[in-house]
Amino acid sequence: MSTSISPLATPFPDIPPVAGVRLRVARARYKEWDRTDLTFAEFAPGTTVAGVLTQSKCPSPEVEWCRKALVLGDARALVVNAGNSNAFTGNRGREAVEAIAAQTAQAIGCRPSDVFVASTGVIGVPLPIDKAQAGLAAAFVAPEADWRQAAETIGTTDTYPKGVSATAVVDGRTITIAAIIKGSGMIAPDMATMLGFIFTDAVVEAPFLQSALSAANTRSFSCITVDGDTSTSDTVLAFATGAAGNAPLADDDSDGADAFRAALADVCRRLALLVVRDGEGATKLIEVTVEGAESDRSAHRVAMSIANSPLVKTAIAGEDANWGRVVMAVGKAGEPAERDRLAIRFGATQVAEGGLAVTGYDEAPVTAHLKGQEVEIGVDLGLGEGRATVWTCDLTHGYISINADYRS
Amino acid sequence: MSTSISPLATPFPDIPPVAGVRLRVARARYKEWDRTDLTFAEFAPGTTVAGVLTQSKCPSPEVEWCRKALVLGDARALVVNAGNSNAFTGNRGREAVEAIAAQTAQAIGCRPSDVFVASTGVIGVPLPIDKAQAGLAAAFVAPEADWRQAAETIGTTDTYPKGVSATAVVDGRTITIAAIIKGSGMIAPDMATMLGFIFTDAVVEAPFLQSALSAANTRSFSCITVDGDTSTSDTVLAFATGAAGNAPLADDDSDGADAFRAALADVCRRLALLVVRDGEGATKLIEVTVEGAESDRSAHRVAMSIANSPLVKTAIAGEDANWGRVVMAVGKAGEPAERDRLAIRFGATQVAEGGLAVTGYDEAPVTAHLKGQEVEIGVDLGLGEGRATVWTCDLTHGYISINADYRS
Repeated sequence: MSTSISPLATPFPDIPPVAGVRLRVARARYKEWDRTDLTFAEFAPGTTVAGVLTQSKCPSPEVEWCRKALVLGDARALVVNAGNSNAFTGNRGREAVEAIAAQTAQAIGCRPSDVFVASTGVIGVPLPIDKAQAGLAAAFVAPEADWRQAAETIGTTDTYPKGVSATAVVDGRTITIAAIIKGSGMIAPDMATMLGFIFTDAVVEAPFLQSALSAANTRSFSCITVDGDTSTSDTVLAFATGAAGNAPLADDDSDGADAFRAALADVCRRLALLVVRDGEGATKLIEVTVEGAESDRSAHRVAMSIANSPLVKTAIAGEDANWGRVVMAVGKAGEPAERDRLAIRFGATQVAEGGLAVTGYDEAPVTAHLKGQEVEIGVDLGLGEGRATVWTCDLTHGYISINADYRS
Repeated sequence: MSTSISPLATPFPDIPPVAGVRLRVARARYKEWDRTDLTFAEFAPGTTVAGVLTQSKCPSPEVEWCRKALVLGDARALVVNAGNSNAFTGNRGREAVEAIAAQTAQAIGCRPSDVFVASTGVIGVPLPIDKAQAGLAAAFVAPEADWRQAAETIGTTDTYPKGVSATAVVDGRTITIAAIIKGSGMIAPDMATMLGFIFTDAVVEAPFLQSALSAANTRSFSCITVDGDTSTSDTVLAFATGAAGNAPLADDDSDGADAFRAALADVCRRLALLVVRDGEGATKLIEVTVEGAESDRSAHRVAMSIANSPLVKTAIAGEDANWGRVVMAVGKAGEPAERDRLAIRFGATQVAEGGLAVTGYDEAPVTAHLKGQEVEIGVDLGLGEGRATVWTCDLTHGYISINADYRS
């Protein structure tokens, strides 16, 4: 964890235990630091799993491992390494993942394919197997950890630990969803772009869990961006232990299916916003809503063009009501748009419509809005019914400071 | 012009006059400044013109005006306004362009469609017609200006004036090409993304001039990026006065066609590099070459993904040999790539191949290369024959400082 906490940070909440999940943390010392950096979660037999993984063409061996293991849909353990992503490390990287899975499987008595592995940190340095093995051995005998300890242990450049929880009523029983996440840079669309882990005691069949997670991802992790960069290791996994004993959630007709989907979507959206709030160097959270597009997909692309524009993000950092940069970002998105139908607002104040500034435009309320920590940009393309909301943060000197010498 | 000159600046060269072109500058005072900000170029009768214009869906009225006028292929004048882009200003913006064209046409005796207009500066504020008219009236009677004065007058956030020239032998005569350009931010692919003006005394039929300019654009202005942002006003125009009296360049079989194409391409490439060298906050010029792609187009996209990555650009700013970020940028490009065939070099030093760091990788020569002002990143995808080179600059605190309060 960095020592300078994001001004947009929110306190770590009280998160209840999830029956069937046991958390432990250890010091593998993947870097020259004195902190916990290996997280081990053990799940009750019968736990199901779903996941969304990076779209990168250069994924880490952990991502490849998880992609294969997800096909089976069963999970007994999760191991998360912080400080080394193990990405782009060839056979040695693959061997490290296999060694972690084998050692864990032997310790708890399961198949290696029941063990999920994720790693985060610098790219190109093979994960040291000896450190991983010693760290795992320590984790197996460590006392149980709480959610906050686990959230701290998976973090790297994060400035604060991130977790959320929710409940839903399924088949007459209250089920719990708890989740932790890490990420603050290399955050962009196309997938999760961070490491996020979601745990529930509900009984959920793996295909339905995957369906609910994929749907939630579309409106959460795929709608955030910090710098437009997509990690080689991005992973979101959801584990359902079944300890709540409800009638299995198998499809949309199952009792409580809607409630479970809604709770999971809520958890994913709140997790995603926690990541944006810790965007590297962020001082403002920016919500971009695009309406009136030809389709939701087109709206999403225009919104991402705005959210990824360095000129828009620096203008917000400077509390400058430079709405012309929003026009620029709409224009460059490559999506259907007509200049003379375009309307733009900042917060509740309409600044432009019909292809020019509104008559009698008063910048004062816009400037006041921009001085806050949460900024809203609204765009109406005036073409159709397509709609999307995405979130990003401003681009500041802090981003440069963090990234111009991260590895050193 | 800004007072702090880019460390990558090069001196303004000696550029000879181009017969048939007369340059004048004036103070329209579009902003609260005491500098020339209106450029007026008058061309001999018979001058032909070609252009490439922004792909933005929200173009300025100047861009729309030029797009229409280019169809006719004739030019007698160019008017460039600095300090106000006139973009996104509705009917008032259109009226300003029409007024400029009408006043100029009357003064020199031509059709309004023979007058080309370009403006650069803040978006969303209609160009004040009275200032334009007074500025033009002053320009008509001003003494002739030289290339340097014109290059300074078209600049906004530029930190140094930019111009190049070249000659070619066409039909046994030496023809001259002279050019000026402005631009330092909002620089991205898909077109010229700046204001650039090219002047030659060659006799060139308009369709061939357009063909040669479009081809040159593909390997120059479309291959540079500063921040991935595309302006609403980007314009490159080429004017051929015909004063050299060569047999007309009409197609690729014309005598000297190849020489002319080569000289124009050289001019465009050097202009484009001048813009990157003045990238906002730039301290290093970065050349990214991608080879082994499935096609040239695919190579271009991968190269642009690297060149637009904030994490790559901040690593170079920090002189950090963080080649893992290049892997990330290749992976996120969405183009065909196979991690285990990927090779990466910095300068002449191979750092990774076959999906991992090279055996015995020594970071010392890479670090030495990164300390220079010109950095080369080479990527071989190992898939095919596709190849592309693009140029960008590093991302520094200077970019944030310039853009967090540019408009204010």
